[in-house]
Order: sequence, then C-alpha cells, then structure tokens
Amino acid sequence: MTQRPETLGVAVIGTGKMGADHVRRIQEVTSGARVTAVVDVDAERAKSVAARVDGCTAHTDPAAAMAAADVDAVIVASPGPAHEAALLAAFEHDLPVLCEKPLTPDATAALRVVEAEQKLGHRRVQVGFMRRYDAEYMKLKALLETGQLGRPLMLHNRHRNVASAPGWTSEMLINDSVTHEMDVTRWLLGHEITAVTVLAPTPSGNAPDGIRDPQFVLFETDGGAIVDVEIFVNCGFGYQVQAEVVCERGTARVGDGHAMVTNAAGRWGGTIAQDFVERFVDAYDREVQAWVDATRRGEVVGPSAWDGYAVAAVCEAGVRSLRDGGRVAVELVDRPALYGG
Amino acid sequence: MTQRPETLGVAVIGTGKMGADHVRRIQEVTSGARVTAVVDVDAERAKSVAARVDGCTAHTDPAAAMAAADVDAVIVASPGPAHEAALLAAFEHDLPVLCEKPLTPDATAALRVVEAEQKLGHRRVQVGFMRRYDAEYMKLKALLETGQLGRPLMLHNRHRNVASAPGWTSEMLINDSVTHEMDVTRWLLGHEITAVTVLAPTPSGNAPDGIRDPQFVLFETDGGAIVDVEIFVNCGFGYQVQAEVVCERGTARVGDGHAMVTNAAGRWGGTIAQDFVERFVDAYDREVQAWVDATRRGEVVGPSAWDGYAVAAVCEAGVRSLRDGGRVAVELVDRPALYGG
Amino acid sequence: MTQRPETLGVAVIGTGKMGADHVRRIQEVTSGARVTAVVDVDAERAKSVAARVDGCTAHTDPAAAMAAADVDAVIVASPGPAHEAALLAAFEHDLPVLCEKPLTPDATAALRVVEAEQKLGHRRVQVGFMRRYDAEYMKLKALLETGQLGRPLMLHNRHRNVASAPGWTSEMLINDSVTHEMDVTRWLLGHEITAVTVLAPTPSGNAPDGIRDPQFVLFETDGGAIVDVEIFVNCGFGYQVQAEVVCERGTARVGDGHAMVTNAAGRWGGTIAQDFVERFVDAYDREVQAWVDATRRGEVVGPSAWDGYAVAAVCEAGVRSLRDGGRVAVELVDRPALYGG
Amino acid sequence: MTQRPETLGVAVIGTGKMGADHVRRIQEVTSGARVTAVVDVDAERAKSVAARVDGCTAHTDPAAAMAAADVDAVIVASPGPAHEAALLAAFEHDLPVLCEKPLTPDATAALRVVEAEQKLGHRRVQVGFMRRYDAEYMKLKALLETGQLGRPLMLHNRHRNVASAPGWTSEMLINDSVTHEMDVTRWLLGHEITAVTVLAPTPSGNAPDGIRDPQFVLFETDGGAIVDVEIFVNCGFGYQVQAEVVCERGTARVGDGHAMVTNAAGRWGGTIAQDFVERFVDAYDREVQAWVDATRRGEVVGPSAWDGYAVAAVCEAGVRSLRDGGRVAVELVDRPALYGG
Repeated sequence: MTQRPETLGVAVIGTGKMGADHVRRIQEVTSGARVTAVVDVDAERAKSVAARVDGCTAHTDPAAAMAAADVDAVIVASPGPAHEAALLAAFEHDLPVLCEKPLTPDATAALRVVEAEQKLGHRRVQVGFMRRYDAEYMKLKALLETGQLGRPLMLHNRHRNVASAPGWTSEMLINDSVTHEMDVTRWLLGHEITAVTVLAPTPSGNAPDGIRDPQFVLFETDGGAIVDVEIFVNCGFGYQVQAEVVCERGTARVGDGHAMVTNAAGRWGGTIAQDFVERFVDAYDREVQAWVDATRRGEVVGPSAWDGYAVAAVCEAGVRSLRDGGRVAVELVDRPALYGG
Repeated sequence: MTQRPETLGVAVIGTGKMGADHVRRIQEVTSGARVTAVVDVDAERAKSVAARVDGCTAHTDPAAAMAAADVDAVIVASPGPAHEAALLAAFEHDLPVLCEKPLTPDATAALRVVEAEQKLGHRRVQVGFMRRYDAEYMKLKALLETGQLGRPLMLHNRHRNVASAPGWTSEMLINDSVTHEMDVTRWLLGHEITAVTVLAPTPSGNAPDGIRDPQFVLFETDGGAIVDVEIFVNCGFGYQVQAEVVCERGTARVGDGHAMVTNAAGRWGGTIAQDFVERFVDAYDREVQAWVDATRRGEVVGPSAWDGYAVAAVCEAGVRSLRDGGRVAVELVDRPALYGG
Repeated sequence: MTQRPETLGVAVIGTGKMGADHVRRIQEVTSGARVTAVVDVDAERAKSVAARVDGCTAHTDPAAAMAAADVDAVIVASPGPAHEAALLAAFEHDLPVLCEKPLTPDATAALRVVEAEQKLGHRRVQVGFMRRYDAEYMKLKALLETGQLGRPLMLHNRHRNVASAPGWTSEMLINDSVTHEMDVTRWLLGHEITAVTVLAPTPSGNAPDGIRDPQFVLFETDGGAIVDVEIFVNCGFGYQVQAEVVCERGTARVGDGHAMVTNAAGRWGGTIAQDFVERFVDAYDREVQAWVDATRRGEVVGPSAWDGYAVAAVCEAGVRSLRDGGRVAVELVDRPALYGG
Repeated sequence: MTQRPETLGVAVIGTGKMGADHVRRIQEVTSGARVTAVVDVDAERAKSVAARVDGCTAHTDPAAAMAAADVDAVIVASPGPAHEAALLAAFEHDLPVLCEKPLTPDATAALRVVEAEQKLGHRRVQVGFMRRYDAEYMKLKALLETGQLGRPLMLHNRHRNVASAPGWTSEMLINDSVTHEMDVTRWLLGHEITAVTVLAPTPSGNAPDGIRDPQFVLFETDGGAIVDVEIFVNCGFGYQVQAEVVCERGTARVGDGHAMVTNAAGRWGGTIAQDFVERFVDAYDREVQAWVDATRRGEVVGPSAWDGYAVAAVCEAGVRSLRDGGRVAVELVDRPALYGG
C-alpha cells in the first residue's frame, strides 16, 4: 500500500451535465480527492453547485480558480470551444488536467495545445477518452497484447444510440460519436489512421430530416489494418457499442453485454442499455480514479494531447469524405518526442 | 397431403466430391427421387459410382444421359466451365436442372444461358445458392419480410474458412467465397448490387504467399443499402458464416451457432464448425428436397439463371476493384420479364 | 453407398395427430419408405388418410394390416393403452416396430412386452424416445463418450411447456413429460435410476385448478449420479428443453437455442420455440429415417423395449413420490440377456 | 448532492487476507473513509499493516481500538470464532459494524448477538453477504420486484470453485460456500428457509480423499418455493456463480458472464473467472461504499444480525442432512420487532 497523505483538491471547469457529474463522482465515488472549486460562465449555476460541496468555492474565470491554493488539479468539462483557453491556463499554473473530449473542436487548435505542452516540457493533459477504462475494452487490449491471436488485421465496430439530440447534424456523427472509435482504433491497434472513407446508405426514416444517419465509416491504418464503424444515432432500440478485432489466428469481440438473461413472453434475452451513462458509468469512475491516483503519484498517464490532436485530424478527413464522397487521406505533423515520436 | 405417385429419375452430371455427395443425398436422404444416371468425363469414375446405385447407368456425355427415358431431371455438379454446355443440353431436352454455383464462370456466358432460357420460354434452372435453404437465413428472411424492424439499411457479413485449398488465388476469395454473400445480399434485401469496393489489409502471415487474405468487400445497392463482407479464408480457427441486418428499428444476426455450451479448463463456449459441410449439411438437404418436390409438382423455384448472371457480373466488378483499387460500378442488362423484370 | 433396392412398406397404426404426422413424414421426408397401410379404430379417419396416399389401404384392425404382403414394418402411434396388443400382433408377424412412447401405460404391461420379445428371441421394437436423435443431445452424448470431461456427477434438466392441454393431471407431468428426462438420464449417463423424489412448490397461479405445476423431480442412479428435473407445463412463455451435465472436469449444456439474435425495442435476444414440433421436428425426421435405414439393413437399433419398461417403472415410483411425499425406490426385474443384461 | 463534511474513521479487526484487502479498499477505493486503526492478535502483522497507512494505529485488542477517538466505525474481518466478542465490544461503544460472514460459527452464538443488539435497541450490524451488492444479482432482485414475471416458484443455483483449500471438509461446503445461496434465497425471494435436504453423488475423483464434493442441496421455503444449489468446490475449470429464478410467467438468470467472446482454435467463447475476488471485486467495493455512505448518514442498512442468525440455523440443518441423510427442518426463534418481525 502506497502512503497517500494528501487529498487532491480538484477544480471542475464547467458545471453542465458532464461537469456536475464529475463533481458528484469526485465527492461520492473517488477515493483521495475532493472538489475545491467549480467554474462556470453562469455564476449562479457555479454558486449553486459549490453550495452543496463543503469547502468549495465558485468562480466564473478558470484562471482565478487555478490560482487558488487548494487547487491541485483541473477537470475541464466546459463546451469544446472553451477547452483551449482552459488548457493554456492550466499550463501556466503547471496543473495536471483531465480534459473531456474533444481536446479542441479542430486539429489546428489541438496542434496549438500540443505545442504549448511541448514548450512546458512535460505532459500535463489526459484526454477523456474513457473507453480505454472500460473493463471489456481493457480485456480486449490485454488479450491483443499477449499476441496469442497474432497481428490484428481488421476491426469491426458498432456504435448505436437510441435517438440523436435536437440540433444534431450529419457531421456530428463523425465529430462527436465516431471520435470514440478513432481513439479505440489508435489505442487498441497502436496504429495511426491514414485515410477515411464515409459511406452513407439511404437515411433511416427515423432520422431527423436532413441527417444522414446511419453512416458506415472506414479507416485505413499505417499498420495495414482495415477498420469499419457502423454509426447509427437513431437506431431506436438502445445504446450499443461493440468491437470485434480480427487477428491472424482468431477474433475477439466485446460489447454484447449479456449480464442477465430472461425467458418471458416467447423470447429469451436481455435488456440493452439506453444511454452511455448506463453503459460506461464504471469506465468514467475508473478513468477519474486512475487520473487522481496518477496525479497523487506525480504522474500523467492515459490519452495524451497528441491523441486528441490525431483524432481531431481524422475527424476533419471524415467530414470531408462525408461531404465530398470517396477516400480522404489524413495528414498529421510529425509526432513530437514528448509523445513518443 | 399431395399425392406423389412417381419417383423422380435424376441424372447427376459430375461425380467429383460435390456430385458424389448429391448421389448419396438423392439415394439416402431425399424423399421421392432416385439417381438413374451419372455422367463424368472420367468413364471409370462414372461406372464406379453407378455400380453402387441400383438401376443407374453411367455416361461420359451429358446429352446421352438426358436422352434416357428414366431421366426426369438433372443436377449439374461438374466444374464451372462445363456448366454452360450441360445447361443448354438440358434446355434441349426441356429438363429441370439444379445447377451448382457458379452458373457459369463469367457474366457473358451466364447471359447466354439467360437468353437460352428466355428462348425456351419458361424457367428450367435453379442455381445452387444453398444459403437460401439454411434454417437461420430463412428465419432472418422471414423476419425481414414481416417489416417489424423497418427497412434494411446495412448488412454486415463475416465469412471465414480454416485454410484455403492449394492453388487458391486472391480472385477466388471474390469468385468462390463472396459469391454467397452476393446472393444473400440480393435475396435478403431484394436489391441489385450497383457497385463494389474491395479493400485488402496487409495479408495474414498465415495466408499462402501472394494471396491477399483477408479482404473487406463493400457493396452498394439500388435500394440504398451498404453491405460489408469480411472474407478470410485462412483464419485458422473454423468455418464461420455470420450476417447481421441493420434495419430502421432493430437488427438481427444469424450464424453464432451456439448449440452446445461447455465449461472446461477456464473457458466457457462451444466448438466452431470446421467446414461448410458441417455448417450447411441441412441446407443442402433442404435445397435438394425442395427442388425435387417442386419438380414433381411441375414447378421451378429458387435462385434463377438471372440470379446466377447478376452474381457473375458483381464478381467481375469485385475482381476489378481488387486489382485496380477503388469503387467499380456493376453493369447489368435489363432484367427480362421471365425473371420478373 | 449401400445398395438399397426395395422401398420399405410401412403400416401406421393410429392416425391421430402423431400418426398422421408420421404418414406425412414417411411420404414426403423419409427416403426409402412409403406408407402401404393405415389403421384406426375410426374407419372413416383411416380411409380419409389412406385416400391421400397412392397405394395405401385402410384398416381398423392392426393384425389385418400386418398380414398384408406390402407391409414390411409398423409404426405404432395409437393411444398408449392400445400399444401392447399392437406390439404382440407385430411379434406374431415378426415385423419391426417403431412404437411411440410410452411403450405401455404401466410397468407390468411393459414387462409382458419385454417377455414376449424375449420369447421371439430377437429385438423387434424401437421405442420413440426421439431426444436421442436430436442434434444437440447427440453432441452432448458424443462429448461425454470422449471422456474428456471425466465421469458425469450430476445432470440438471429444464422442461417447460407453454400450457397444459385440457384434462391434464399432476401425474401426467411425470408420466407424459418427465419420461423424456428418464430416458435421457439412462441414455446419456448409461445408469439405471434407483430412486425418485418429487417436490412440488406452491403451484403457479397459471396452472389449472388442482394441478401441481411446476414440480421438481430428483433421480438417484446406480452410477452414483444425482439428476434434477424442473418440469413446468404452464410456464406461459415457450417450449424449452435444456440439459446440463456436470462432470469431474467440466460441464456441458444444450438447449439454449440461440439461432437468431435480434436487437429491438430495448432488448437483445431471440424467440423461444412454442411447441415440441418446432423444437424437435428434425429429431423426429432423423429418428424415423434411422429406423427405416436400420430396418432395410435388417437391424434393430435405438431405444429398446427394456428402455420402455425401465422408464415405466421410474414413472410409477415418481407418481408415488408425488402422492405420498419423500423418496421412493425404483424396483426393476433383472435385465435380460437380449437387452445386454 | 448531500453534504458530507467528515471522513469516516474505520477500525479494521483482523489483518489476514480479507482484512488487509479491506484496508486497501478503504484507503484506495472507497470515498469518504480512512483506516484509523487495525487490530490483530499478531501484533507484528498489525504494526506492519498500520505502518503503510498514514495516521493509523495498531492494536491487539479490539476494544482498545474501538475506544480511540478517531474510530467511528468497525469492520470485523477476524476468524469466525472471534466475531462474537468483537461485535459485543462494538455494541458497548455503540459503533456501526460491517461484519464479514459468518456472523458467528453457530446459531446459538448468532442468537446471542441478535439479543445483544435488541438490548441496544437499534441496529448496528451489517453482515458481509456481498452478493446483494453484485450488479447482476441487483438487476435480478430489481426485476423480481417489478412483479412482471409473477411470483417466484423455484430458484436454481450453481456455485463452483476451481479447488478446495487444504483442510477443507464436507461440512464446509455447507457452512462456507452454500451460506451465500442461503442468503441469496432469503433476500431474493423474501422467504425463510424451512427445510434442507442434502444429496451427495459419488464424489469427483478430483475431490480430496474423504470430501463429499459435489453436493446437491435443496431448500424448501415458507413461501412455498423450492430452491436447489449445486455446490462443487473442486470443479477444476473456474469460479462460477449462477442463479435462475423461475417465476409464474418467466425466468431470469444471472452469472453467465459473457464479457468478451473470442473465436480461436476451433472454439468460440470466453474465459471463466478463477476466483471470487475476480468475480465479486465490484460487489465488495460497492458493499463497503454503501456501508460507509449509510454510516455517514447515520443509518444501518444491508443484511442484519437476524440474517446472520437465520443462515447459521440453515447451516446446522444442512450439516445434519449431509451427515444423517434425508430432509431436516429448520427451527428459528420468533423474529424480533427490531428486524421487522
């Protein structure tokens, strides 16, 4: 047992649905941390959240919160366009950050974050790609690493949501949903994605007008693998995330989720989760605990700013393929040494 | 119960592995039929097979067998290049034919068969796409036809063999294996395939030198569906055929094959079939029985010469995509009225 | 290929639901046999069935049918109380018989059949325990015979019907349903059943008044195994037959029936068969084909009159346990040499 | 969010495998608690564990630890025979206790604890039946509580361990293993167990000499249900805990554990957990967090001393049935009002 004398003081930037959930998690689930500050452009919301947490202050300016003596680390859960400023502020205070995905809304901004972290000279950012902390994906990764199935050749993914939120666009299927499969591909296979092709069947009659849903997305990788992703955000029946890796000597699949099996009314089977919270609640808990533990040890682990940048670049290629059709190559800058380049 | 006074006399053309198996099936499994003639260019082999069947004659010429008084119907199980001549001979004798796939090795020859049957003025050919007679695929088709899942949008297929036979080429993955998924796509969805794209990951280390195995094949259809096929003929672990149809309101998958589940040595699960005979023996039995029953009723059912032609045309597009890369459009002649055009 | 010159002429005794289905099966499914006579105490029904089969005569007396020159073998599908007379008539004509279960309604009568067959000096009877011909049970048996899981220690069975037919009694759960598990136990394990204990929970509210449904039945065997059977004939949701053998080094389970898996309306899973025909149609087909094939080879295989007798004796013990409570020992006569004693 | 100002100070009694794991859990996993004292008769072991935890003192006497100002609650993880004294000491200090199962080694001692807690006048004890905190069992319980499947009629359980520890006896299968199913039965069904019957097949050749393994245990309940438990502690292949509740209109099963499915080497399937830690780690985490949360709210929840007493009484009946054979009735005192009597 490592000695862990201090409790980590965390500032949570953004107190919307995701931020408020992180506050609850840090206070009620995570060991070794507490929320000492919350930040929101909506001062009333920040105050209202802070009021329920003992010893927690409310702010509207991220930098002010980061300057506080009892803030040791930062969770960024504000909207994507606000991430860059919050990250640069954290770099200024040299604070470790868990930044919800996306790192930034586009690859150019992501590259600026990567460069700023390089200037700092050490990693400070963990990006919130929480699937890496899902028990099933972790098993899959561990199996691949044994090498017993041989080299991965293909990766088949299914990603289904009950219904898209109001205001959802065809591009958001790539930018908000398939980003997870981009990260999963890079992490599971250890390859960079070199090209994207997006195919769109005739939309489902249940998709809102003008939304191309479902889509079928293909990645080619620098390791010679082919990856396919079915993204279907108005499938109606449940939230389902599945992945099958096909290797030289076998395949492995996760995400069938067969916890309880019932027989009733002429059918056997079970229920399908209805949203990502139900499916990935343990992954979020594990992600935040891992980040707190590493931070208390003085380490930075997990998905890096480089991972955030690479995914942003793949998104841009994917959106171009969706709009113009055909295969679009992904262009990345050289990988800096800080990220193992 | 329909009255069925006569036993159908069947000539089997070709007495290789598949032909000999059809002789056994007709004699020992099928109700209402018997083998009255066998044909093989190898006269000794034909004689040896005929000798084991009571009242069966041996021939080297298909036409001679078809002229015999006790031959009411024909099974063509000779090599693909011999199919066209056998089919035209059967048309001359106006005999019903069950023709093993492929109808012919190329689309041009297939079109000649289609045209010859049109001249005859009625259907005589059933093509041996036996997956249509597999219990699981039949369930899947029946479910789709209820409409309860809505319109099909995507179809995901897996087709895996333990190891390729000697002499196998990259093109044969398309021409000999994926032909089944071409037929399944057209039959399940009721769409024509309009374009093919073949992607090939770095080949498995277990593929013979020079064979691009696995491949990932995409179909677009005139019904706006996207279909993907993983074909992997040296997967090493078993023979596996799976299909998942994604519809507007749900999905349905067949081919998991979970008959017996064991717990032993740290693992739960079951065995995977090792070849297509084990997986599809019942489908072959059902196919031949259905053909015999229809023939005795004076009907022709099942996959038509048009289906054989359409698949041959998709194969040619697929091979071109494999060789040259990119998307290749499929060109079909107009569908004749005889085939519902 | 064995030469099989003759078509077996079969007399079907009893033309109720089961008998009529056997007539259809012999005529339309089975290879190498045809129905040449049907027998029913209801002369009109017999005539009406015979009229639909070419060359088939109608009778009201089994012995008359058996005397016909074109009758080579007999299927007994009349009600249980009529079995003994039909079997003894078949012995007189030395005809092979496939006798639907039960062999006879009680052990005393069954013993008389066993003794009559002994006098005849060779086996003539196959009892219709069709589960031995079910593909999954056959796999289970084959696995046990490899010995790789070690010695069987326990066998867990589930046997569920949607609803009991009118007139069903508590005893019929033992005599009509659990008889299958009695045969399965003896056949799979190769043990005789030495004691029976029947436990009955508070009946389901969906069971007809006065019917103790479900019941939980325990067998002890002379091989030291413990066998449990859940019998539930008003489960409402489907027809389900499952068996798990627990051996020294592993377990094996059949009957989960996962052919097609759907995702829809918040649930994954599949349909449950609604009756034994749907579940065991292939087993019946295989059973009758195996009986026809053996008969044409001059052999008698499958469950014997001894098996029918042993199951009748276990039934009597089971009914006594249900009525009086507690454990009831099973008493069998010594096994005659004709049945491997 | 509830305000939770204080961190709960916990004394852990017993620093063997289970106690040390609870120390780790409280320190590294649980939110809102820390270990302030550890107790062990082995002073060196206590000191060595305490040394790794900041601000933690070591004791050899439970009462001394409980007297410390920074001890707010107690976890009892010492051997069963030491539980009674530790519990009575906790009552004296009026401290909430999480007591590992068994409450005490026999029903008489358990009854003394029940009476002592009654004298105290309010509940202080939660017994460590952690299956109530397993996600799958919780789903099963929740489904039963909806009533949609109707009244529970039967409960089938499987409980398998890879191998028994040295010194294991036939009675320990009842007292150490089946205790979990006793608790599960009472909790899931809400019934008391009224009789136990233990049947033992010929032991597996892999069971240590003299150990009757496996055993098949039957419970009858005051709600008219029949419950069966297969307990097999030398099954060799894995740690497996399964439960199927059979209700009037359907059944529900947990414990199949199908997280990741692989295809390799001729087999599909997945791995089986190898011990209870792997299978129930999340249940332990959830149990301790729930106990900490309730304690901080000033509440006592979860399995009570009465539950511990009732299970001890069922164990005694079970051991008698194993020794003497046959059905043994369970005798309980009247349920006190403190426990809902």
